[in-house]
Amino acid sequence: MILTVTLNTALDLTYGVPELVPHASHRVSEMSERPGGKGLNVARVLSALGHETVVTGFAGGSTGTVLRELLAGLPATDAPGPGAPGPEAPGTAPAPTTPAPITDALVTVAGNTRRTIAVVDRATGDTTQLNEPGPLVTADEWAALLGRYEELLAGADAVALCGSLPPGIHVGAYAELVRAARAAGVPVLLDTSGEPLRRGIAARPDLIKPNADELAQLTGSREPMRATRDARRRGAHGVIASLGPDGMLAVTPDGIWQAAPPARVPGNPTGAGDSAVAGLLSGLVEGLSWPDRLRRAVALSTATVLSPTAGDFDRAAYEELLPRVGVEEHTPAAR
Amino acid sequence: MILTVTLNTALDLTYGVPELVPHASHRVSEMSERPGGKGLNVARVLSALGHETVVTGFAGGSTGTVLRELLAGLPATDAPGPGAPGPEAPGTAPAPTTPAPITDALVTVAGNTRRTIAVVDRATGDTTQLNEPGPLVTADEWAALLGRYEELLAGADAVALCGSLPPGIHVGAYAELVRAARAAGVPVLLDTSGEPLRRGIAARPDLIKPNADELAQLTGSREPMRATRDARRRGAHGVIASLGPDGMLAVTPDGIWQAAPPARVPGNPTGAGDSAVAGLLSGLVEGLSWPDRLRRAVALSTATVLSPTAGDFDRAAYEELLPRVGVEEHTPAAR
Repeated sequence: MILTVTLNTALDLTYGVPELVPHASHRVSEMSERPGGKGLNVARVLSALGHETVVTGFAGGSTGTVLRELLAGLPATDAPGPGAPGPEAPGTAPAPTTPAPITDALVTVAGNTRRTIAVVDRATGDTTQLNEPGPLVTADEWAALLGRYEELLAGADAVALCGSLPPGIHVGAYAELVRAARAAGVPVLLDTSGEPLRRGIAARPDLIKPNADELAQLTGSREPMRATRDARRRGAHGVIASLGPDGMLAVTPDGIWQAAPPARVPGNPTGAGDSAVAGLLSGLVEGLSWPDRLRRAVALSTATVLSPTAGDFDRAAYEELLPRVGVEEHTPAAR
Repeated sequence: MILTVTLNTALDLTYGVPELVPHASHRVSEMSERPGGKGLNVARVLSALGHETVVTGFAGGSTGTVLRELLAGLPATDAPGPGAPGPEAPGTAPAPTTPAPITDALVTVAGNTRRTIAVVDRATGDTTQLNEPGPLVTADEWAALLGRYEELLAGADAVALCGSLPPGIHVGAYAELVRAARAAGVPVLLDTSGEPLRRGIAARPDLIKPNADELAQLTGSREPMRATRDARRRGAHGVIASLGPDGMLAVTPDGIWQAAPPARVPGNPTGAGDSAVAGLLSGLVEGLSWPDRLRRAVALSTATVLSPTAGDFDRAAYEELLPRVGVEEHTPAAR
């Protein structure tokens, strides 16, 4: 089982409007509601890849109840179509078409789970995002989460710690969760930003997956190789830097690789990072080589950009992209 | 008791952001949640004026549950301050400081009550509005509402029919509700727009309270006196046209009056129309003269524009404005 932790879960609402005009009134023509927060998105992709997943973190109030009801309905019963599997790349079998279960192990809090609202201009597809603040989490609720987390680690093959911290949670919270995972011998991936990332890295997670902005904020550098190596020196065993449409740069104890999709694709990058996390973590648990893990992560995140629904991945595109992701190893001299 | 009907209730969310920028991501710095829909806003003002109110209409789903929980908390226990009552105008005693109860007689539906989101730019106070569509109401749910409505009419001194129709409700719904009120001998005020207003007027409501846009849509004229008289010829016994900051024009069986606040005031007009409805209806039930009803309606709506919270009225401003609203009768020659 793979465990994902989402301390600041969200009820994600998407509103379709013809065009968002500031200071005007808008009738929302289409809307959808789904359980969100990065770790929940990661779990959805892991489930689609056939990995049993347990989600923990916090949920509360009426929005928390709706989130859990929607989560209970996952994985969706309307399985995606068969797609057209491409030639198999070594070690990367196509994803199973039956999704694996997602188990709700969220800790109930008194506060209200936040809502996020994505207002999508129907003409252009451009999105305006409104994010409520999370609930204030008490010391007792944090202690309950820690207890639940340690129990769950006992059965976990890997754990992903994802997203922002809600109010009330101390900035060193992820460092604490990283140390507990390492003490339990469970590989841990940390995907957050700012001070929680800085503190978390110092606790030596197995993997971090920053994007260019997060790396720059952490290291002060926008030069990918320099910033990625710097991030590694700060404590992360492996750093997988997301380079957006250019793919990923992996600096690991086993070598340095760069992976790139066959072409730049148009679409909505929402959730592409979460799909990459699911690709990396599932590959780790399956014992794939670094090149195959990166291939999967890049194919999944590119297929997420291509999907018409934000945060979902296009399975046919994924299968088709997988063998076409280019992975290049940096020779020791180039290091 | 005064009855208000809100077929398309809403959970009204207000989000404070520094500035709404299309296609950017925003952290909501302040948020509030309150039960909404025009008839619920009218009920809140009636309660503040000391009138027992019963609210009916539809509510459902998780948002409907939250709406009803918030409604159960009304009237707020933190009563507004005593204010500074001005000299009393004839027949218009200052509003009591103890609010009267609001009773929930909403009919539960299977669909989800809609949310509305007001995004307020903190720097300028400008508001961008996003309104979800209402729930699809079934024929059985509409029949349940009709039954509940007829029971409630038996104990009502007046009824206000407010706002838009949710999906599934036929466009002649308000006409049906107007006829039932007239059959029961209960004075009925209709406050809606478009085709539901056009149809509703034909059923001969006692009062309608259109604004300039609604009047123009109904009659094709933007000339207040002409449009108001035209609206009356279509079936409404009395037409109180809201002229925005210029006050109100009343064309009634008893005469024609124009009422205006002492000065134009800056602020947020959200809810000013609902406060006017509460003023007109409470004045009718109390047997006030037309000039005193109009004085109250104009003072309440002006005090709503002045209030820092959208939809609430500033009680001190109301008491101070009440005797200063100018009311002028149009002489028969001028008619």
